[in-house]
Amino acid sequence: MSAQFSIFCDTEFPPEAAAELREGLREHRVLTPAVPIQGNLAASQSDRAILEAEIAFGQPDPASVLAAPRLRFVQLTSAGYTRYDDDAFRAAAQAKGVALCSSSAVYAAPCAEHVLALMLSNARRLQACVVDQRGRAWAAAERRREAFLLRGQTVVMLGYGSIARRLTELLAPFEVRIVAFDRAPGGGEKAEMVDESGLDAALAQADHLVDVLPENASTAGFLDARRLGKLPRSATVYNIGRGTTLDQRALLAALRAGAIAGAYLDVTEPEPLPPEHPLWQAPGCHITPHMAGGRNTEHLALVRHFLANLGRFERGEPLLDRVV
Amino acid sequence: MSAQFSIFCDTEFPPEAAAELREGLREHRVLTPAVPIQGNLAASQSDRAILEAEIAFGQPDPASVLAAPRLRFVQLTSAGYTRYDDDAFRAAAQAKGVALCSSSAVYAAPCAEHVLALMLSNARRLQACVVDQRGRAWAAAERRREAFLLRGQTVVMLGYGSIARRLTELLAPFEVRIVAFDRAPGGGEKAEMVDESGLDAALAQADHLVDVLPENASTAGFLDARRLGKLPRSATVYNIGRGTTLDQRALLAALRAGAIAGAYLDVTEPEPLPPEHPLWQAPGCHITPHMAGGRNTEHLALVRHFLANLGRFERGEPLLDRVV
Repeated sequence: MSAQFSIFCDTEFPPEAAAELREGLREHRVLTPAVPIQGNLAASQSDRAILEAEIAFGQPDPASVLAAPRLRFVQLTSAGYTRYDDDAFRAAAQAKGVALCSSSAVYAAPCAEHVLALMLSNARRLQACVVDQRGRAWAAAERRREAFLLRGQTVVMLGYGSIARRLTELLAPFEVRIVAFDRAPGGGEKAEMVDESGLDAALAQADHLVDVLPENASTAGFLDARRLGKLPRSATVYNIGRGTTLDQRALLAALRAGAIAGAYLDVTEPEPLPPEHPLWQAPGCHITPHMAGGRNTEHLALVRHFLANLGRFERGEPLLDRVV
Repeated sequence: MSAQFSIFCDTEFPPEAAAELREGLREHRVLTPAVPIQGNLAASQSDRAILEAEIAFGQPDPASVLAAPRLRFVQLTSAGYTRYDDDAFRAAAQAKGVALCSSSAVYAAPCAEHVLALMLSNARRLQACVVDQRGRAWAAAERRREAFLLRGQTVVMLGYGSIARRLTELLAPFEVRIVAFDRAPGGGEKAEMVDESGLDAALAQADHLVDVLPENASTAGFLDARRLGKLPRSATVYNIGRGTTLDQRALLAALRAGAIAGAYLDVTEPEPLPPEHPLWQAPGCHITPHMAGGRNTEHLALVRHFLANLGRFERGEPLLDRVV
């Protein structure tokens, strides 16, 4: 029998996932906050219950993580970990001996499928077809002329983590050229890797520019007016990283000027995008509501990912998706 | 120097493709009809010019093909060849020594990319997102809950020719199960093949049913009320074969009853779908205007495919996409 841990869990899951979590934790003591989180994107406020825990699962706030004296392992319910992604937190967590893991593996597949869905719906003009259908218009000649093959095109990725790796796998049969920029490549990339000195030249050849950057001090506004200006007029920008990594004013200007062909945004700054925001109606701008990581089995997958990591923690094995 | 042929060409191409065709045929004699075809989907009427030709490129009518005394090789500008697909035409053409080739290879890639685009836009709820965007609605929770992964799902294909083969390649990284029905499998299939006796059981397991059937006497109404009735409620039907292969009344009833989750139709009967047709507004029904084979380089690809086949004809090599 394994050791009993005190596990702080701040997130309330739907029934099926909650049942699987309860079953998986039945030998442990589960601590819940006064006000649980509904939905995985919210961030919990400081809560006293975490002070007794060795393990935390959910979105515990960074100050509580550092304050909890017994904490050894934090499993986030998100791929992103912006609030924890600074040198001060890293240093303090490492000094304390707290491991922080993201749920990156849960989100790689849906995010990659979402990006490919956007690229293909662009190539096949599906958004225009939805509008045609509402007007009962059969625009065969126009749509056939506008549609294009992905085969032979160039895809440039900003950021090359687990989403970009999965997207590379999905794109393999399409015979596209993949160029990727990453500040700290992990090795084994199946893309032509470029550093900042090579990025401008890559942008100039992009048919599709996919922003998968995480949000942190070094990525804020990374895709700025200067870099957008390197793209050919035929290029389309996709953002499924974070809204703050893209200069939305510069994007809006580029769309309005016809300097790029279009944009597909799953993330924006702020979120939700306010109804009066000009991007809703910018030419060639298509918006999905920060859903790239979503899927009907999301919560079940988060619970299973945590239970798998808990098993690794108990056995002293390397943790999945460890980021600190 | 190769032999000079008289080549009947009934189709008028856009400038770039026309120039490449002219250059490719400059050692031959080109015969054009009194009224050329605009666009590759029309069928030409009988024309006297074909009577002098050894080769025809376009959409010559079957009677003229059989009447032209010197004709040896007909290159169609379409993947479909319904008008020529009967025993009487085959026998007469074979007796005369006329080879008939489709342009199937030109259309496999765009059609397969179109089907995957439809499957992924279904999985990622992109059609709903277009409607959301028009209302400036940020429906994150709903769209995340509805979205699903293709990974692990079952795709059933009706017909397993070049489009289905290319779709199988594109689906390979998704880790889906692929089951295919084909009356005359060509060998080397990368799918679980079933015959009519195994089809009903496959339909009952389908998440995605892809109709890629050609139009001929044996496929008319193949996907009928009985077969649609085998599908689970969660299944989605895709038709990029021909409108006549699907019983649209039965499909409409199934959509209205919620007996299936949705339908994506690129082909309908008739085409264009008349504005008053109930499928335009049927629940979960998404229509694209017979554009799956289209792309901005379509005409250039048709010309290149013909010139490649012409070279094979001149050298006495096996022709590409030969169907008779």
